[in-house]
Amino acid sequence: MSVTETPVRLPIPSLPQGFRVAGCHAGLKRNPLREDVSLVVSDRPAVAAGVYTTNVVFAAPVAFDRARTPGVGFRAIAINSGNANACTGARGLADAHSMAAAAASRLGVDESGVLVLSTGIIGEFMPLEKIKAGIDRVAGTLATDTNAIVTAARGMMTTDTRPKLSGSSFVAAGKTYTLFGMAKGAAMIGPRMATMLGVILTDATIHAEDAQRLLGEVTEHTFNCVSVDGHTSTNDTVLLLANGAAGGEPLSGASLNLFEKALSDACEALAREIADDGEGATHVLRIEVTGCPTRDTARQIARTIADSPLVKTAICGADPNWGRIVSAAGYSGVRFDPNALVLRLNGTLLFCDGSPVSFNGQAVSDSIRASRETLIEVEMGFGTESIRFYSSDLTADYVRLNADYHT
Amino acid sequence: MSVTETPVRLPIPSLPQGFRVAGCHAGLKRNPLREDVSLVVSDRPAVAAGVYTTNVVFAAPVAFDRARTPGVGFRAIAINSGNANACTGARGLADAHSMAAAAASRLGVDESGVLVLSTGIIGEFMPLEKIKAGIDRVAGTLATDTNAIVTAARGMMTTDTRPKLSGSSFVAAGKTYTLFGMAKGAAMIGPRMATMLGVILTDATIHAEDAQRLLGEVTEHTFNCVSVDGHTSTNDTVLLLANGAAGGEPLSGASLNLFEKALSDACEALAREIADDGEGATHVLRIEVTGCPTRDTARQIARTIADSPLVKTAICGADPNWGRIVSAAGYSGVRFDPNALVLRLNGTLLFCDGSPVSFNGQAVSDSIRASRETLIEVEMGFGTESIRFYSSDLTADYVRLNADYHT
Repeated sequence: MSVTETPVRLPIPSLPQGFRVAGCHAGLKRNPLREDVSLVVSDRPAVAAGVYTTNVVFAAPVAFDRARTPGVGFRAIAINSGNANACTGARGLADAHSMAAAAASRLGVDESGVLVLSTGIIGEFMPLEKIKAGIDRVAGTLATDTNAIVTAARGMMTTDTRPKLSGSSFVAAGKTYTLFGMAKGAAMIGPRMATMLGVILTDATIHAEDAQRLLGEVTEHTFNCVSVDGHTSTNDTVLLLANGAAGGEPLSGASLNLFEKALSDACEALAREIADDGEGATHVLRIEVTGCPTRDTARQIARTIADSPLVKTAICGADPNWGRIVSAAGYSGVRFDPNALVLRLNGTLLFCDGSPVSFNGQAVSDSIRASRETLIEVEMGFGTESIRFYSSDLTADYVRLNADYHT
Repeated sequence: MSVTETPVRLPIPSLPQGFRVAGCHAGLKRNPLREDVSLVVSDRPAVAAGVYTTNVVFAAPVAFDRARTPGVGFRAIAINSGNANACTGARGLADAHSMAAAAASRLGVDESGVLVLSTGIIGEFMPLEKIKAGIDRVAGTLATDTNAIVTAARGMMTTDTRPKLSGSSFVAAGKTYTLFGMAKGAAMIGPRMATMLGVILTDATIHAEDAQRLLGEVTEHTFNCVSVDGHTSTNDTVLLLANGAAGGEPLSGASLNLFEKALSDACEALAREIADDGEGATHVLRIEVTGCPTRDTARQIARTIADSPLVKTAICGADPNWGRIVSAAGYSGVRFDPNALVLRLNGTLLFCDGSPVSFNGQAVSDSIRASRETLIEVEMGFGTESIRFYSSDLTADYVRLNADYHT
């Protein structure tokens, strides 16, 4: 079953200074209109940080990048879709090196300054000649315009229906800095790690250790708070490049806080986009779990609700079946008092004091149908920590897409 | 969306001596052809053991039965479907008491000798008058014939398409004993507890503490090794009644081992039936994980594979997409060496030594299509313990059933 594309959401954010990007079709995907190789190039050496999948079975590009980040002196990220280079053993790791070397050679930079990202089918060896030809071609079209940005973002898509972009500017110590992010992900989206592929670019100057620390912290409450199907991928990677092209000293103190805020906003926007574009999704579930002793507790409850096929199908059917939500919280592994739990769906009280509440089911059902986003608020009543978690509903189209993806 | 019924599987097992059962339609379900109240009666006091859901949000009948088992002097189980009596607070617990009292009064037995089982919609108060009228009526039709057995088993069904029955005889110390089991379950089937409702009856004489210990142990590798959607219900309960009607001393030593074998076979048959009858299922997944340091480790890996929507949809699509299986093992939370993992699907080697293996994809796909059962064998290579786990595939019909069940 082929994926129906939807238009990219406007406005297209700008690239930070000193970065150029492009994407092209190199033949990894069957459809010649779909880009499958992209390059992100920094015209000056950039600091790079990365967060990666926690899956024991991790792909070759994850092993490759993890060994190099955090670090300095990075000039490019070579990206392909259509093949994940996962479960490919020693040959897969050699292929990741070849891919980086091809980009380095074409761009005239040191091979140690290149990172790689791959996504697509697991367990097939990389079509290296196609990828090298793609890199060769795309290196000739690097640019900063919106067309370049969109084709670069499309080059990392699999079953995504649209590119996922975000960006912002912030002023710190009198200088204007730009932050840009792009991500892909529509299935095999599970929590407990950085989710899927994400690239964040900034022209700010940031120490490598600050970049790594902030990327890790922000990922915890953004990309790690989204789930489409609970399946943690082999390839999940988020990379941050900071090239300092906007000038100024390395950010610190209040300036670094401003950067963290911009980074957090960008990552949350991309994370929400991933849930929104979940395979076959007709609803985004925004799950707000509050009143917990720790953030991890809140995330565990939210994730269990987010991954329950019964909750996800209920929202698909516009059914305010709150028993499924309350019982999902109950098997999350967190011990709590059900009598203290208060549940609201799209603002309507459905459950409190351990007993059903009288409510207008038709009105709640209508509210689910009327909006792309469904808000599930769960107040646990045994603490002060909270979490926001995004998921998607489970539809017959998800099943059709995934029953037919491989063969 | 209504459930299409399928015929009960033959042969119908016999009841043990001294038990009578029946079921009737009492108006909890809309369809007048569907039974929704059942009684299981022992003509003599029986030992009872029970295992229950681990969900923090547990239903009133679970609280009610858990307080009474293990114990002696039990005479009846009153059962209803169509309403789970879950998330119903103090009134729900009072309703469970009323249900037991109604059965005790009608049968002329002590109220303390009655257990209750409820399944169906969560969060609605019990229609007690209908249930009492049903108990009154069904008590007049108690019998031991196959019709009584089938109607009793149907009285505990929700979206099951057929009753789930199993039974056997065994000879110990010169006496012939009979074991009988019935169960329900087609969705909200998750591991980590006794799954859904099960009733096991025997005419052997067994000490209450032996009954409880064996039921707990057997449940661990039978009902706790099945998952349809990973959603642990609020009502899961398995009850064992042993009434000693076949005579003889309490079983011990080799005789008790024979009983355990019969109990294990009956529970595994019922557990497999639950997966086979999973909502919308077109395939049963039999997942054999071997070579693990502990049984719990093996179960954790098997459960993660069993619950992955990507694995479940791949089997639905007859797609030997082994990358989804290997990556699911990888995010199970168990640390292992992917290079030691060997994967076979329906007997064909798909992955070993950390790399893809050349295989005939069409032949494997055909083998999935040709059989109701798909065998997934995962050899982990770091121990000697193993587990067998049952799951079902994920189909568009599952989504349709669950998007429409409530409203």
